[in-house]
Amino acid sequence: MTKILIIGGGGMIGQKLAHHLASEGWNGQPADVTLYDVGFPENCAVANRRIVGNLTEQVAATGMAATRPDIVFQLAAIVSGEAEQDFDKGWQVNMFAGWALLEALRSEHEASGGTYRPRVVFSSSIAVFGAPFPDKIGDEFLVAPLTSYGAQKAICELMLSDFSRKGFVDGVSIRLPTICVRPGKANKAASSFFSGIIREPLNGKEAILPVSDSVRHSHASPKSAVGFLRHAAALDSSLLEGRLSLNMPGVSCTVAEQIEALGDIAGADTVALIRPVADPEVAKIVSGWPQDFHSARATALGFTSESSFRDIIQTYIDEDLGQS
Amino acid sequence: MTKILIIGGGGMIGQKLAHHLASEGWNGQPADVTLYDVGFPENCAVANRRIVGNLTEQVAATGMAATRPDIVFQLAAIVSGEAEQDFDKGWQVNMFAGWALLEALRSEHEASGGTYRPRVVFSSSIAVFGAPFPDKIGDEFLVAPLTSYGAQKAICELMLSDFSRKGFVDGVSIRLPTICVRPGKANKAASSFFSGIIREPLNGKEAILPVSDSVRHSHASPKSAVGFLRHAAALDSSLLEGRLSLNMPGVSCTVAEQIEALGDIAGADTVALIRPVADPEVAKIVSGWPQDFHSARATALGFTSESSFRDIIQTYIDEDLGQS
Repeated sequence: MTKILIIGGGGMIGQKLAHHLASEGWNGQPADVTLYDVGFPENCAVANRRIVGNLTEQVAATGMAATRPDIVFQLAAIVSGEAEQDFDKGWQVNMFAGWALLEALRSEHEASGGTYRPRVVFSSSIAVFGAPFPDKIGDEFLVAPLTSYGAQKAICELMLSDFSRKGFVDGVSIRLPTICVRPGKANKAASSFFSGIIREPLNGKEAILPVSDSVRHSHASPKSAVGFLRHAAALDSSLLEGRLSLNMPGVSCTVAEQIEALGDIAGADTVALIRPVADPEVAKIVSGWPQDFHSARATALGFTSESSFRDIIQTYIDEDLGQS
Repeated sequence: MTKILIIGGGGMIGQKLAHHLASEGWNGQPADVTLYDVGFPENCAVANRRIVGNLTEQVAATGMAATRPDIVFQLAAIVSGEAEQDFDKGWQVNMFAGWALLEALRSEHEASGGTYRPRVVFSSSIAVFGAPFPDKIGDEFLVAPLTSYGAQKAICELMLSDFSRKGFVDGVSIRLPTICVRPGKANKAASSFFSGIIREPLNGKEAILPVSDSVRHSHASPKSAVGFLRHAAALDSSLLEGRLSLNMPGVSCTVAEQIEALGDIAGADTVALIRPVADPEVAKIVSGWPQDFHSARATALGFTSESSFRDIIQTYIDEDLGQS
């Protein structure tokens, strides 16, 4: 059985991935799935085991690596807003724990005489980019993050590339657009409102819009995120030709276009639940984020996303509305 | 007096910079100069103090930061060839010691109530780039290193940018082209031969050429490197607009053009001392390095280098030939 470790398995994407693996398995076979996180939701996805632990403890990485998973999904992170507020915590979890994991996997690689070389799929972010941007960011555009979170993600990409180049692991980094519509509650990510303004009104609740509706951003659904992760885990990494970081495709639209799509689907009364309340701190962070991508490499490698924001809302309605 | 700390002050560039500061001072005034390194040459440049220490020891960073230098030149590194051979040593010195330094400076910043905010000039490298390249690399080209050394330099740039964005330090990273002609002995850098094929023949000695003479590369003299460092230390960092890493200008030429310039200056007998002996490992590393740059941002900010490889050889003859 393919041994799959999901670090951050208690989070929203980790749970979506675990649900998928529980129902579909891996390559048509049941998979041996381990979830690792600081905690798990009450209605946690079925998995072979759940481990509660803290990535900043030295034993975390060595313990996870000792089980020699075939595939490691590294999804755990302190989100952008929190990493901006708590500098130390952000660097410890988002960078140093990433280093510890790679070192632990390298130790297993060496202990195995070089035969153990796991696929590591790292969930990076478009926050590695920083303004000013071209209208569409191409695959050769520089990384110049304007948040600690973005810097930490960029650094983990560089580490994973070097450990992969050396043959210790077999890595792929996927730079996710903002995942929208997130089910459940708002989180501390500065991007949280992009989901909130759709999710809360669809649940009959008021939502705060902290930025101008002219803000343009790139989105993909949780379902697409799971698809990206699965595709990255199965990818022939030689096709990456040493450039292991890929900009995932997504739907680029303005907040006004998001709201228009919500109105099309759910009507004006639902839209009326969105209340603009400017938040300069959130607006500042978001203004440094990219708006659109070519994603030519990822598309050529077979990664796919929705083609409209209406599709993204429909995915939320189909998968998550009324579930919580 | 301006307090200047040169980490890696015993190395070739550090010594050149220290000699310069000893004779010219800083802004027309004598400077208080501290050199830090694992060791110093016999004919060490004059400085206010020399500290022998190992950057990988925790006390190194805290001790250096406690003196609250106004300007920190961070030049110390395990060079490319050695970092490729000794994975652990490369990461410990080139990344973790860089982190420790920034953290120690941040502690002083916080202890000072935010008034202490040193200029940190980080000597990065064009090794942050990796093939394939455009003919000339522009200022917005992606970082995709193909060596551990390049990955470590790129990571330190990202750290320095984030610590600067937060206001803890005031950083600038300058990506040096290969510094040529290096005086003294060959080192373990994969780029060492670029100097060797000029220096050894001018000293009447045989030199090994490990790559094809069609290899194109970008060079600047040690004198230009000192100029880059001084200019970076005095730069108004607000002009960088948050993008703190700059590609320095240089002279792009092939090895054949280097040899032709040597022949023009020193004659065919000198050129005859160059002996081609292919070294696939060196050739592989060098093939992943960039060949030429636009360096538009650095040039607009006032950084200057030589305009021909003949000038670079002449600088070596004027400054270093017969000195050792």
